[in-house]
Amino acid sequence: MREDELVSAIDALVRGSHSRVLVGIGDDAAVWQPSRSHRSVITTDMLVEGVHFSRAWMSIRDIGWRAMAANLSDVAAMAARPVLATVALGMMEDTPPADVLELYAGMQACADAYGLAIAGGDLSRAPALTLALTVVGEVRATDCTLRSGARPGDVIAVTGALGASRAGLAALRGEVTLEPALAAEAIEAHARPFPRVREGRLLGASRNVHAMMDCSDGLSTDLARLCARSGVGARIENVPVAASALAAARKLGQEADLFALAGGEDFELLVTVQARAFAHVAARVRAQTGRTLHRVGVVQADEALVMVKQGVTHPLTPSGWDHFA
Amino acid sequence: MREDELVSAIDALVRGSHSRVLVGIGDDAAVWQPSRSHRSVITTDMLVEGVHFSRAWMSIRDIGWRAMAANLSDVAAMAARPVLATVALGMMEDTPPADVLELYAGMQACADAYGLAIAGGDLSRAPALTLALTVVGEVRATDCTLRSGARPGDVIAVTGALGASRAGLAALRGEVTLEPALAAEAIEAHARPFPRVREGRLLGASRNVHAMMDCSDGLSTDLARLCARSGVGARIENVPVAASALAAARKLGQEADLFALAGGEDFELLVTVQARAFAHVAARVRAQTGRTLHRVGVVQADEALVMVKQGVTHPLTPSGWDHFA
Repeated sequence: MREDELVSAIDALVRGSHSRVLVGIGDDAAVWQPSRSHRSVITTDMLVEGVHFSRAWMSIRDIGWRAMAANLSDVAAMAARPVLATVALGMMEDTPPADVLELYAGMQACADAYGLAIAGGDLSRAPALTLALTVVGEVRATDCTLRSGARPGDVIAVTGALGASRAGLAALRGEVTLEPALAAEAIEAHARPFPRVREGRLLGASRNVHAMMDCSDGLSTDLARLCARSGVGARIENVPVAASALAAARKLGQEADLFALAGGEDFELLVTVQARAFAHVAARVRAQTGRTLHRVGVVQADEALVMVKQGVTHPLTPSGWDHFA
Repeated sequence: MREDELVSAIDALVRGSHSRVLVGIGDDAAVWQPSRSHRSVITTDMLVEGVHFSRAWMSIRDIGWRAMAANLSDVAAMAARPVLATVALGMMEDTPPADVLELYAGMQACADAYGLAIAGGDLSRAPALTLALTVVGEVRATDCTLRSGARPGDVIAVTGALGASRAGLAALRGEVTLEPALAAEAIEAHARPFPRVREGRLLGASRNVHAMMDCSDGLSTDLARLCARSGVGARIENVPVAASALAAARKLGQEADLFALAGGEDFELLVTVQARAFAHVAARVRAQTGRTLHRVGVVQADEALVMVKQGVTHPLTPSGWDHFA
């Protein structure tokens, strides 16, 4: 059973509802309504040593930062601003308390950078260092932007070039050697990513942005999910590739755009934008955040995912990360 | 380093704040303010197979129920009503998807009983079946009742007799054999506990209830925590012991009140109540929920914890559960 299939089976099982829960399983975060004009969002992630991270190639402080950043990216994808986090932490018998405090220091550094508070948690014994983070954010009812709103004709765009995180992981693992400046870019992207919270709020506030999600499992996988939720297809015409990913792909003998497409954990936002407003939205994002909104392709009514490469149209297979494949 | 010491070190480290986070680490749940009149609460727990539960003596469905119930008990202790839960679940390579669905079925059954929705989650690989649950609730600003409000002279009370869960665990493990009716009571208390959500809301709505927490680590440990947060001490005069706990303690050759005092996971609420209002509050709880509020003792200005037994005063040591001792 693949991850998406098991998630669907779980989704079918937990069909319980609450009048104030507006969005349940299946988007970047769940949404509920504490009062009429307010929306709160919540997202949770589990990270296990040896599965999601290794102290062999990352400091424990960076592991903490990254865990927090991954959750903030989901909050960003709902156009929300983060308010608080809770941390459930499983430590081994022989985990030094100093390591736990380092992990917290990393999470707190990221929380400080984004102005949220770590407000609660739970400590437990576990057979591997295990971190379950939950982040809550708040968003105006009209700004909250889901995966399901993409419309045929929309421009598909991402908030940054892709593949740097994958290049960084390859560099940290010693699978590829990059020149110092590119190595630094790539390792920074992997170890201390900056989720696009400001960009998400700005994009969510625009009525021309129809759908949004974060691009944490690779563009090909995540775009397929967005299209499935929206009942549409997509044509990818251009994959913005980070300089470090370009160099890493070349050294590894891989095609750069496929390397970037399949590389997860870039934590950029993936949006679909009303075509005639795209230039305007991109200009606003650049003016207010300094970031470029990269045009990737276009939403199609036909539910297929295709990629146009040197004039030839190829079917696109989700080649991102599946924890259970 | 003991659990409470590590929690204190973490607490000192995560001193980041957010203007809308009103209560952080240290109470049953964190509290924030989505809008002026509303308070949201959030609590999280990690449960690991082999540490917190075993499939050897409990069905996986009951494990799911119990995990949800434990979090709802924390929400109850804030006088809040639960709205939603998120579930981060770590499964082993060889965990059958059917087991994951059973675990969800148990959580969902408990969620149904209390009217909340499972609204999101994360699936991951892990070296042991691991469950990190987070529950969010909502409460009126004036009802939210913390651990820190106990005042000298308050009556200390619990919402039910104690020790049944511990007796149930002993019965499930085969450490003690109880007569069928008592065994059923004890096993039900352990495997399918009913957190006191209605009682918590009722108690929180009374201005005569000064402090509240749930009694999940054993009365002696939890009362010590409540007293520490309130800067007071306590004198225990009477420990209400469940019939099954009485029988189990007798068979195990232990004193029944000590067995009940140290037995965690009863998920009753522990409150301190203005002395002259106690009878009135207890009558309202009985009228509206059918439950008895058991008088346990009295809050003292002197910061010691003592227990009066057959006329003799003994110092009370926290003998509840410490994950790290």
